[in-house]
Amino acid sequence: MPSSSPLGLHRVLDRPSGMLPQAARRLDASPELQADDEVRIDVEVLHLDAASYRQLSTAHTGSLDRVDGEALRQAVLDIVAERGKMQNPVTGSGGMLIGRVAEVGASSPLGLQVGDEVATLVSLSLTPLHLSDALTRWDGLSATVPAAGHAILFGRSVAAVLPPDLPAEVALMVMDVCGAPALVQRLVDRHRTQTGSAPRVCVLGAAGKSGVLSLAAAGRAGAWHRIAVVRDQAEAGRVAEAGEAERVVVADARDPVTLARAVAEAGGPAELTVVCVDVPGCEQPAILATAEGGTVVFFSMATDFAAAALGAEGVAADVTMIIGNGYAPGHADIALDLVRSRPGVRAAFDARRSTAQTTDP
Amino acid sequence: MPSSSPLGLHRVLDRPSGMLPQAARRLDASPELQADDEVRIDVEVLHLDAASYRQLSTAHTGSLDRVDGEALRQAVLDIVAERGKMQNPVTGSGGMLIGRVAEVGASSPLGLQVGDEVATLVSLSLTPLHLSDALTRWDGLSATVPAAGHAILFGRSVAAVLPPDLPAEVALMVMDVCGAPALVQRLVDRHRTQTGSAPRVCVLGAAGKSGVLSLAAAGRAGAWHRIAVVRDQAEAGRVAEAGEAERVVVADARDPVTLARAVAEAGGPAELTVVCVDVPGCEQPAILATAEGGTVVFFSMATDFAAAALGAEGVAADVTMIIGNGYAPGHADIALDLVRSRPGVRAAFDARRSTAQTTDP
Repeated sequence: MPSSSPLGLHRVLDRPSGMLPQAARRLDASPELQADDEVRIDVEVLHLDAASYRQLSTAHTGSLDRVDGEALRQAVLDIVAERGKMQNPVTGSGGMLIGRVAEVGASSPLGLQVGDEVATLVSLSLTPLHLSDALTRWDGLSATVPAAGHAILFGRSVAAVLPPDLPAEVALMVMDVCGAPALVQRLVDRHRTQTGSAPRVCVLGAAGKSGVLSLAAAGRAGAWHRIAVVRDQAEAGRVAEAGEAERVVVADARDPVTLARAVAEAGGPAELTVVCVDVPGCEQPAILATAEGGTVVFFSMATDFAAAALGAEGVAADVTMIIGNGYAPGHADIALDLVRSRPGVRAAFDARRSTAQTTDP
Repeated sequence: MPSSSPLGLHRVLDRPSGMLPQAARRLDASPELQADDEVRIDVEVLHLDAASYRQLSTAHTGSLDRVDGEALRQAVLDIVAERGKMQNPVTGSGGMLIGRVAEVGASSPLGLQVGDEVATLVSLSLTPLHLSDALTRWDGLSATVPAAGHAILFGRSVAAVLPPDLPAEVALMVMDVCGAPALVQRLVDRHRTQTGSAPRVCVLGAAGKSGVLSLAAAGRAGAWHRIAVVRDQAEAGRVAEAGEAERVVVADARDPVTLARAVAEAGGPAELTVVCVDVPGCEQPAILATAEGGTVVFFSMATDFAAAALGAEGVAADVTMIIGNGYAPGHADIALDLVRSRPGVRAAFDARRSTAQTTDP
């Protein structure tokens, strides 16, 4: 066993050792760097992930069905004090944080400078964290938590410097899903290299953040025909405004026959189908809507492995099925550049931001 | 809607229409061909899948914890009569069948001739089936069911002619997992074309049927270093005898640190990792044991989609993750040719066959 590890194994307090930080019950969150490749961050804001915040707010509901902010704050403090990380023990999930770089180990590969304002792109569920302010600036009523304290990044952590030219809120929304456009760009590039021709690309759930960015990435990489599938006319209008699809169609992505027909009528089937629909049951429809020899990439966390594997076999579909990886080298820069360079994409994220501000009390 | 469909939509009796045969409650199993691309099979043997037979035998246990064969037989007859297919309503699974081709539609793409003895490689859970013999030759005590009746194949079904030069039992075992070697061969070929060099290949769970065939497929496709990971010395001995790995190592595929170290010491990490271990929790270990920029293909039905997606992101692993597809064009022939041409593989399957005969009363 090495004394330190780019995966952070040396910060795991559970015994026997050898467990990864995400699986561990308790981490050592002491502020001193314990490895040459560690980085310490002064924490400014925690963004709890949606599943975790929903669980906590349901568990701490007071009178009149109102969230008991005080109890919720104490619950978060207790978790962090006990575990040395903000990992919801029920959902297992974490979230991300924003902070400023305080110290950088001599051999850190993350490319950060002291003073950089960064967002962490690996989960809080594996990030050593210590809180020093009792979260007094947080009312417990939203998943955005003003906080003071410190966090530790490892050699294989991922953090992105917040860009000075974009609102932080837009940058965070983009970085949250930046694995999707990076992978779509790579798959379109690969298809062009291998076949000498540009692929058609179909995105299911095209109105969401990852959907719009996937369409834009496909466009920049040279896809020749992009089909956006959405669930209703309101979404269709928004996707059409973004200007990143040659065809926008309304169809139920859970209905195999309807979907395949709708995609075919819109110029499909596509050589690359990107599933961004966050509801179960889209596996076999996506497979059937894809050209023989094509590729389906699943970014929805609602994807069921067996449904995809058996779904392809059951209809003798020769498709390559890929599990969407949230990480790729340079993924944040790729996504942010799409937002900067493609006005329709930027407008879609600005609209989402103002909607969120309107509907979130 | 077309009046007939290569997916068999026209055989679905549920209303509203548009459901795929696998999802349907009832199929029309009448013997007349209802589409130009259908094929009718005279059934000889049903092979219920393991999960289905286990459920049925547990549900029909009589005195002294013995399976009530009579009740089990009646249960299968009732399911087929009610649903027009042998799909266990609890597990949702089916199995496969062996039979002889009785009639071939004029435009069937399956390449079958009347009189061919075939195995169906799509699930019984989507295959129209009618039984005519009350299963009188079956005692209900094993998942192998001598039967008479007929079944219908669609344009997109898959069936393979039983090879005259191999024992039927060996051919069935091979065809049951033939998607794995076909995909491994394709991925090794692709790697060589793209990079100009042969990949290292690591197979987790190398002692199983799909594991041995994956190693053999990698070898034939030109992998330069094959690492077989097994769970104990007995398995290591069997894999070494098959002669399809340059290195055989014993390691727990659920332990990320141990596995990565064991694979590295055996000449890894590999550019292609093939997961054939049928236990949960191997996702992140497999990812960490794979070279950056490499590929992990998951053939285990115990794979959890979220564990793979989040597991890669959590350690910033730039790997392509593929959902193993049980179908690829020519997959049965590819696998059978490996058994014919590589004596160690043939011996491994023969040994498995005699073991099964010894231990199965």
